[in-house]
Amino acid sequence: MMDANVAKAADIALLVLDFDGVLTDNRVYVFQDGREAVVCNRADGLGCELLRTAGVELMVISTEENPVVAARARKIKVPVSQGVRDKAAAVAALIAERRIDASQVMYVGNDVNDIDAMRLVGWPVAPADAHESVRAIARVVTKAKGGEGVVREIADRLEARTWRP
Amino acid sequence: MMDANVAKAADIALLVLDFDGVLTDNRVYVFQDGREAVVCNRADGLGCELLRTAGVELMVISTEENPVVAARARKIKVPVSQGVRDKAAAVAALIAERRIDASQVMYVGNDVNDIDAMRLVGWPVAPADAHESVRAIARVVTKAKGGEGVVREIADRLEARTWRP
Amino acid sequence: MMDANVAKAADIALLVLDFDGVLTDNRVYVFQDGREAVVCNRADGLGCELLRTAGVELMVISTEENPVVAARARKIKVPVSQGVRDKAAAVAALIAERRIDASQVMYVGNDVNDIDAMRLVGWPVAPADAHESVRAIARVVTKAKGGEGVVREIADRLEARTWRP
Amino acid sequence: MMDANVAKAADIALLVLDFDGVLTDNRVYVFQDGREAVVCNRADGLGCELLRTAGVELMVISTEENPVVAARARKIKVPVSQGVRDKAAAVAALIAERRIDASQVMYVGNDVNDIDAMRLVGWPVAPADAHESVRAIARVVTKAKGGEGVVREIADRLEARTWRP
Repeated sequence: MMDANVAKAADIALLVLDFDGVLTDNRVYVFQDGREAVVCNRADGLGCELLRTAGVELMVISTEENPVVAARARKIKVPVSQGVRDKAAAVAALIAERRIDASQVMYVGNDVNDIDAMRLVGWPVAPADAHESVRAIARVVTKAKGGEGVVREIADRLEARTWRP
Repeated sequence: MMDANVAKAADIALLVLDFDGVLTDNRVYVFQDGREAVVCNRADGLGCELLRTAGVELMVISTEENPVVAARARKIKVPVSQGVRDKAAAVAALIAERRIDASQVMYVGNDVNDIDAMRLVGWPVAPADAHESVRAIARVVTKAKGGEGVVREIADRLEARTWRP
Repeated sequence: MMDANVAKAADIALLVLDFDGVLTDNRVYVFQDGREAVVCNRADGLGCELLRTAGVELMVISTEENPVVAARARKIKVPVSQGVRDKAAAVAALIAERRIDASQVMYVGNDVNDIDAMRLVGWPVAPADAHESVRAIARVVTKAKGGEGVVREIADRLEARTWRP
Repeated sequence: MMDANVAKAADIALLVLDFDGVLTDNRVYVFQDGREAVVCNRADGLGCELLRTAGVELMVISTEENPVVAARARKIKVPVSQGVRDKAAAVAALIAERRIDASQVMYVGNDVNDIDAMRLVGWPVAPADAHESVRAIARVVTKAKGGEGVVREIADRLEARTWRP
């Protein structure tokens, strides 16, 4: 059973991560030929490793179609769905396939196109600099801003059972 | 009719954006071979989409000739004029071609070479970190600095009709 | 004649700029193949243009040998000497060649290897985040940090004659 | 002899540096093709030079396998071991090979995988933004955050003998 306000890693079966604004600071580097780059954080790489070791399944879902999303997901060994227009439908499908309860799912999102998906899960989480409408519906707002170690903070707080909204 | 101090999206027919310092933080990444990159914000991509949906025409005008300007404009689906020396003349031409009133035009600029163009339009807007001489003549100064989501803030404020100087 | 504390552009015949930490934030982007990039500011490009128009000669002197220095100097149309080990000797030579007085020379530097050169000129200037030993001997410390528009601030302050230590 | 709280360069025979989060801000730039870049600081390049001149041996040890680590180490002329899973074992081997005392070794680390190595040496040091569990066991926490000149600060403080925990 999961306390309403305090979770541990074992309470979370699936952690779904939006990409831009969560694993990045929502900025995009644009080159002359149109290629893009993003800036991520080594602390999140370690955070993903800690969570996986604790038995949490990880997944990245992004509307963005640029290959940088897949490149980063590959590096941190997290499966990814890109070009997802309806994130809520995607999350509902993930839950149905796994036969888990929505209360066991955490979703971290930063903008308005994450809100419907966040409403579906037990643990909607927003980075400190998420859009205010997203922070308003989040159960927890992390101290970290997007790209500053949001996943690492989640790993640390779940481990310490200090996850209080 | 447009209230002197509160606008909604329907009051704005055309939004003209300077590039460097508005869609970017005015910084430029310089590579060994002279190529450049800039850093933009995913939030502005979404902001442009929201404004287009609300019926606002968007346009980027820049003095800078580097192809990164065109690369970013293409990604966010906004037409662009680069290498523009006389921005005021360019804005006057846009207004004449569209047979709209200058009071329906918003121009977002950050430096002294934007001032003449800003004086032509009903809604001169400056990012929080624009040159002080630009902020001095702006009707509205956004909370966001250049590259931190200026266009997204404009979209949000027009939608909420909380656009007060 | 130059007032001890207030200069205008006409008082400065030559402005010598260190590169890293002055035109950049002293950071260097390192790629897998060893290539480097730096981040500069469009405001400094405009600042150089304003100073040139006001009759000030500009020059970049750098110890660093990486081609990014030359790439940026070319873009902002400022002559450059790279790989300079003894900056004081280089500055002394520039002064001798031009037959100008050291009191008409401004040098902007950010680290200990700039100190000897700064001691030679009438206007030693340091960015806000220069090494403390450099700020200690500077006649003026700019409000801007390196890469945040140091040259633009110099241009503005010389124009407004508000150049007070 | 080394005072418990004040060290000078001559007290340190070997300075071992973790890479990400020490010589960088722990962020990683990710490109479309999966290549990475990191951002370092020219001040640390100078700091390494100052320490070498003062007779301190330098070494970079990193878990990360990406070639950017080697690229930066080469530029600042510091030997590097990459892909090191057990940093404590690596440090113990370095000490044994050199027949120095652990009290003469300084190790700068920023995350939990540095803690065992830090416990082995006389001078465990953490950047200001290191993980709190690392700062907790550090003898000194630098004012500088990772990538903001941690090594340069160490060089300056050792030279000034102001190295007080």
